[in-house]
Amino acid sequence: MATGPSPKWDVSHANGEGKTASVITVRSVLEKIMKNLNESDTRPVVPLGHGDPSAFPCFRTTRAAEDAIVDAVRSAKFNCYAPAVGIEPARRSIAEHLSRDLPYKLSPDDVYLTAGANHAIEVLVTALARPGANILFPRPGYPLYEARASFSQLEVRHFDLLPEKDWEVDLDSVEALANDRTVAMVVINPGNPCGNVLTLEHMKKWVTVLSSSPSQIAETARKLGILLIADEVYDHLAFGSNPFVPVGICGPITPVLTIGSLSKRWIVPGWRLGWIVTNDPTGILQRSGIVQALKSYLNITADPATFVQGAVTQILNNTKEDFFLKIINALHKSANICYDRLKEIPCITCPHKAEGSMSTMVKLNLSLLEDISDDMDFCVKLAKEESVVVLPGNQELWKYDPDSKPVSFLSTYAATVGLLDFLGLETYAFLATVISSYCPDWFVVGLKNWLRVTFSVEPLLLEDGLGRIKAFSLRHAKKK
Amino acid sequence: MATGPSPKWDVSHANGEGKTASVITVRSVLEKIMKNLNESDTRPVVPLGHGDPSAFPCFRTTRAAEDAIVDAVRSAKFNCYAPAVGIEPARRSIAEHLSRDLPYKLSPDDVYLTAGANHAIEVLVTALARPGANILFPRPGYPLYEARASFSQLEVRHFDLLPEKDWEVDLDSVEALANDRTVAMVVINPGNPCGNVLTLEHMKKWVTVLSSSPSQIAETARKLGILLIADEVYDHLAFGSNPFVPVGICGPITPVLTIGSLSKRWIVPGWRLGWIVTNDPTGILQRSGIVQALKSYLNITADPATFVQGAVTQILNNTKEDFFLKIINALHKSANICYDRLKEIPCITCPHKAEGSMSTMVKLNLSLLEDISDDMDFCVKLAKEESVVVLPGNQELWKYDPDSKPVSFLSTYAATVGLLDFLGLETYAFLATVISSYCPDWFVVGLKNWLRVTFSVEPLLLEDGLGRIKAFSLRHAKKK
Repeated sequence: MATGPSPKWDVSHANGEGKTASVITVRSVLEKIMKNLNESDTRPVVPLGHGDPSAFPCFRTTRAAEDAIVDAVRSAKFNCYAPAVGIEPARRSIAEHLSRDLPYKLSPDDVYLTAGANHAIEVLVTALARPGANILFPRPGYPLYEARASFSQLEVRHFDLLPEKDWEVDLDSVEALANDRTVAMVVINPGNPCGNVLTLEHMKKWVTVLSSSPSQIAETARKLGILLIADEVYDHLAFGSNPFVPVGICGPITPVLTIGSLSKRWIVPGWRLGWIVTNDPTGILQRSGIVQALKSYLNITADPATFVQGAVTQILNNTKEDFFLKIINALHKSANICYDRLKEIPCITCPHKAEGSMSTMVKLNLSLLEDISDDMDFCVKLAKEESVVVLPGNQELWKYDPDSKPVSFLSTYAATVGLLDFLGLETYAFLATVISSYCPDWFVVGLKNWLRVTFSVEPLLLEDGLGRIKAFSLRHAKKK
Repeated sequence: MATGPSPKWDVSHANGEGKTASVITVRSVLEKIMKNLNESDTRPVVPLGHGDPSAFPCFRTTRAAEDAIVDAVRSAKFNCYAPAVGIEPARRSIAEHLSRDLPYKLSPDDVYLTAGANHAIEVLVTALARPGANILFPRPGYPLYEARASFSQLEVRHFDLLPEKDWEVDLDSVEALANDRTVAMVVINPGNPCGNVLTLEHMKKWVTVLSSSPSQIAETARKLGILLIADEVYDHLAFGSNPFVPVGICGPITPVLTIGSLSKRWIVPGWRLGWIVTNDPTGILQRSGIVQALKSYLNITADPATFVQGAVTQILNNTKEDFFLKIINALHKSANICYDRLKEIPCITCPHKAEGSMSTMVKLNLSLLEDISDDMDFCVKLAKEESVVVLPGNQELWKYDPDSKPVSFLSTYAATVGLLDFLGLETYAFLATVISSYCPDWFVVGLKNWLRVTFSVEPLLLEDGLGRIKAFSLRHAKKK
């Protein structure tokens, strides 16, 4: 008998020799980076990497929401399985809640409940995926979109967000990328990670482009007809000059699929209650089969807990405006601290003060630093020396080379770490196998030599963390 | 401008002409059946089709479990995102809980939390799927396995459960089906839908076959090495002569992946808390990459609500034996009623009295019936005339014919309804598109001219429903 595992049980060999090699390469790089993490620092780690402030007292959810869950559990009415689309009262309440901001009325049938917004992304991307199709994602954006699209063999194309124009969508790049195989375009508003809030004027501009531009392919004269996916997970978390306007307001011009959840506005990401909404006043989604594909996948995937669904009506009805104001004010305060402190750091430029969501993008000026090679290097050394976690702006994945080895890296560092922070070591390695099978070309999710900074952190800890970034930057500054 | 939707938005055309035709055919058949459903009957519908008794007072969950959820919500400690594998205290408690029935100790790292057992099926099947591989499922079984396997392009092969041998696994059919592309074999114990409880003696027999038989392919002399997936969603719900024994007891012989949840034993399917457990005392799963594939998919899929995870320890610690006994007794009583009443119906044979889970399989003798063509016809007419929902035993899907139309039906009725009841009209149509792309041959999930009857219903309603089945059967009996 062999001492090692049977080859039959070895998943890593399953997809062939070349792809196994790629996994090993990714893993080696990742492990190298993991070893750089600082473990000896006794100061608290400052987590400026992800948008979950629920642990901080100033961001605690409202008692009204907790009461709603308790009441739902105590009623014993919600111990049962729920319909795949969600229970009707919750769908009705969300439809009414969202209709307040729209020029038309949503129906309960427009609302599909999911186990959080991440799950909504899974469901939407899976339902839209088909061979040969592509989808347009923003750069910078939210990496789970790329992960799920690649998993579903959906080609990813990135359009740019423009820092010099308050992170508005670059319409030229959208027009250049879209063709008659493009199924949808994703916009995240308020922006993650950019912290911008789109104006209605700008929104209407690209909605018109999407719904009426001729296709890039000359021989097909028909309309582009690209679906709009509006990721409004941070809806209403706007504290600058632009008010939050849902993209669904453009529903009468072009159909919009909106993703939302309780997670951010109520600061309860762990409750896992999200939704997909069809903003479809002209009935295009209903007639075209999109709704059917959506429902179909919902039938064979996870559901949110039924009693959380049962609590939705009470949560929406009983949450006081005070609570929302408290959260907005806390975020506004943190965004100001973040902007002001980062401005004091010579090697960092913040082109746009965050006006929404929980994060911001800032540019690194490497020419002012002595021994930092790129954004990834900055993050690794910052974590090591200061126990502050910040994400690199760069999210380059890998290059698919059909002629030789399937995967080669654009750069050893940049290739890996943006996604690593989000997905973890093993998932990245796993996804590398899957994506390398399908991805026709390399793609870049983020921006090279930028940083993503989350500011939804208690003010004192935030000040502490930003102070450490300043100290780090000054220590590594080029001697003049 | 066209009046209809743009072709670009029409998902049904996405996969090519032939497959579109197949969807239309499936949909036509399904719609025809839906029209047969009775809507004018004023009597209550008797739901003997699915295992969710949570609405009946005699099956209400324990106050201790409700308290645990309330405490977790009130603590505000579980509003945050959880790790993809689940929070450590819950994993530790489940490991300790399950270790009581095992000859070795599980570690918290052996436990992966999922959003219910259905989600555990999704995660496991997705993690194991790869091109060219096959998986062995029991016939009769639980249709979501087939749905997820087909969705992941994993070939499905069915081994038989033997009614004349208390629904034991037919070892000959397992040996005949397994080859070196077989990744796993699923057993459901206590049995769904058969209501049987496997003995340790029988279990050890097929575990030995799986772990030591030479491969079917003559040229590969190495061991089969087929993973065992033990679906123990109904664990401990045993009320006959055989005690419940977890398959994980065979872990030292061959690695076992166990699926479990709170749903059935605590009667809280809506709480969506399930788990996958690696029974892996020899470390094969850990070394082979299976664990990594599992973790990887968990990173990009849904999670159970964090506060439900936070409640797990208290639920497991505080649930009294009284509650379990109450549920077991209620099920035992219902199983007896079911068996006794069905025995009175001439055209129905029950080869095995249910000793576990919440359902049983009974055989139809069509020669005693006048105008019933098959099990599906029986179910459709029963629903129409008596408002009693029972599932057909037959779960034939469709036949893939590579030479002409991609999908043709084995029979118009049987092809559709077993899955319809479970998945709903639109999902079935959707899956038909997906599965028809990959399924190399037709497969049969269930047993032709059998019925699946769920007995986890309040005794009075159960008596009522079984009485209606009797009246129906006598009315349709052949005149002698």
